[in-house]
Amino acid sequence: MRIGVIGSGALGLYYGAMLQRAGHDVCFLLRRDLQAISAQGLQVNSVGGNFHLPKVHGFATPEAIGPVELVLVGLKTFANRHLVELVRPLVGPQTFILTLQNGLGNEEQLAAAFGSEKVLGGVAFLCSNRGEPGIVHHLGEGKIRLGEFAGGASDRSRQLAGQFAAAGVPCEAVSDLRRARWEKLVWNIPFNGLSALLGQDVTRLLGNSDSRRMIEQIMLEVASGANAQKLTEPIDGPAFSRQLIKATEQMDHYQPSMLLDRLAGRPLELEAIYQIPLRQAIAAGVEMPRTAMLHNLLEIGEES
Amino acid sequence: MRIGVIGSGALGLYYGAMLQRAGHDVCFLLRRDLQAISAQGLQVNSVGGNFHLPKVHGFATPEAIGPVELVLVGLKTFANRHLVELVRPLVGPQTFILTLQNGLGNEEQLAAAFGSEKVLGGVAFLCSNRGEPGIVHHLGEGKIRLGEFAGGASDRSRQLAGQFAAAGVPCEAVSDLRRARWEKLVWNIPFNGLSALLGQDVTRLLGNSDSRRMIEQIMLEVASGANAQKLTEPIDGPAFSRQLIKATEQMDHYQPSMLLDRLAGRPLELEAIYQIPLRQAIAAGVEMPRTAMLHNLLEIGEES
Repeated sequence: MRIGVIGSGALGLYYGAMLQRAGHDVCFLLRRDLQAISAQGLQVNSVGGNFHLPKVHGFATPEAIGPVELVLVGLKTFANRHLVELVRPLVGPQTFILTLQNGLGNEEQLAAAFGSEKVLGGVAFLCSNRGEPGIVHHLGEGKIRLGEFAGGASDRSRQLAGQFAAAGVPCEAVSDLRRARWEKLVWNIPFNGLSALLGQDVTRLLGNSDSRRMIEQIMLEVASGANAQKLTEPIDGPAFSRQLIKATEQMDHYQPSMLLDRLAGRPLELEAIYQIPLRQAIAAGVEMPRTAMLHNLLEIGEES
Repeated sequence: MRIGVIGSGALGLYYGAMLQRAGHDVCFLLRRDLQAISAQGLQVNSVGGNFHLPKVHGFATPEAIGPVELVLVGLKTFANRHLVELVRPLVGPQTFILTLQNGLGNEEQLAAAFGSEKVLGGVAFLCSNRGEPGIVHHLGEGKIRLGEFAGGASDRSRQLAGQFAAAGVPCEAVSDLRRARWEKLVWNIPFNGLSALLGQDVTRLLGNSDSRRMIEQIMLEVASGANAQKLTEPIDGPAFSRQLIKATEQMDHYQPSMLLDRLAGRPLELEAIYQIPLRQAIAAGVEMPRTAMLHNLLEIGEES
């Protein structure tokens, strides 16, 4: 399959590399890493075993890539004002688009520009970061849950999940993408925000009884916001929170992406992870007051 | 009047110096500044005019001071576990005690140890900080509002207010000390907490539309907590908030005490400024959710 990767951060580089290693023809839109990867290929340092791709197709513009069968979107959502223009040159009649971006609102933008029948979304449970140019670190996990933007099960989503799985990426097709996105928010909203606000990794946040309690409270709040969205099946807030916290306890001093963004002086993904979920919860009659306050505190740090 | 100052931070040094300059016999319990002040006196750099007190009575222990007519307490409330033992040697049959400490709960501790008839409290509107040992900076304001812990008006409180005024410290006796304390909290709770959490002075906090809105929201929340306390007269939340914000706009890049405490690695005055007010509000049936979350976030920073 000819695949174009738009947004070659840690996520785009890792999944693209896994797909290329499995035999797909992967084209990466690169900026920071273009020179290094063109010269020396891409090195993946992974908990599942390191590997090196000596020859990687890196491109400086999406026009140079042209139409592909699958567009894989890993763009940071704070750059979403460029999303459609970056994806458009890769889209032909047979193309479909899978966005693995964080939060809510990404599929909607792509569907408005290219038609909802072309759009799938997925949530990635991946601990990864970029090292020096040409190197990506895969620290743990990697599973993807993907589904149709239009909702429901599809052969296409099951086939795509099978191709990821064949490439060594655990992947599951889900019939309710919105539920999967909200489940991910139950983790992202407390951990991303608190880590960025307080400058603490997940292990420190869970090691402190006050922040641990706040994480639990925010998780329940987000679960109730989710359950107001008419999902196919409600999220069991208490049980699901316990499960997420248990899983997070295994992530040794993991720094969520929003903490890394703040440390690097990048913008934060506030719209996708906070603003749109808050708006959707309020529209469904649910207040998420801790989430709202956390968002406001993060926003203050952004403007100053 | 023989006056003992317990807690000779910026507040204790400034008010003690003003009282000594007016002719009172002031005894300072000193720690950091003992050597400097004993050797070279106390320098006050004030917006109202600098002055120098060449001879200042500094003491290393409260026992060395002995009984006084007035104990002036300026101790940081995070040191309140030492409050009673520090004050006790200064208390004789005729002594009364004025605590100018922040927040709630201070008069109660003194009253439990020495009897409520000995205790007055006051709120100080003072912008000051300590410089090098032997120097205190008075940056602005200075007004005190004081009253009886037991409540009501008294000749004693009016006379004490008159003595402060005669010493150049604007001072007003109030009949409802609890109301004055809660009014001060309407300022302290948003500005102290947000400045310490976000590392921003009052000018930056007010210059950002998001934090300004949050300050207003927290002020209204605290005013409603106050108004559940059966005060003699309710606080007009919206009008009072506007007035406080207007006054704060005059404080050019002022750093609230809690921001200074955090920057200096000192503990924060969380019990007096957050925990006790939150408990009293809840006991009166009022939730202050933003205040509670701000407190929790500050507490997380304390433990780590």
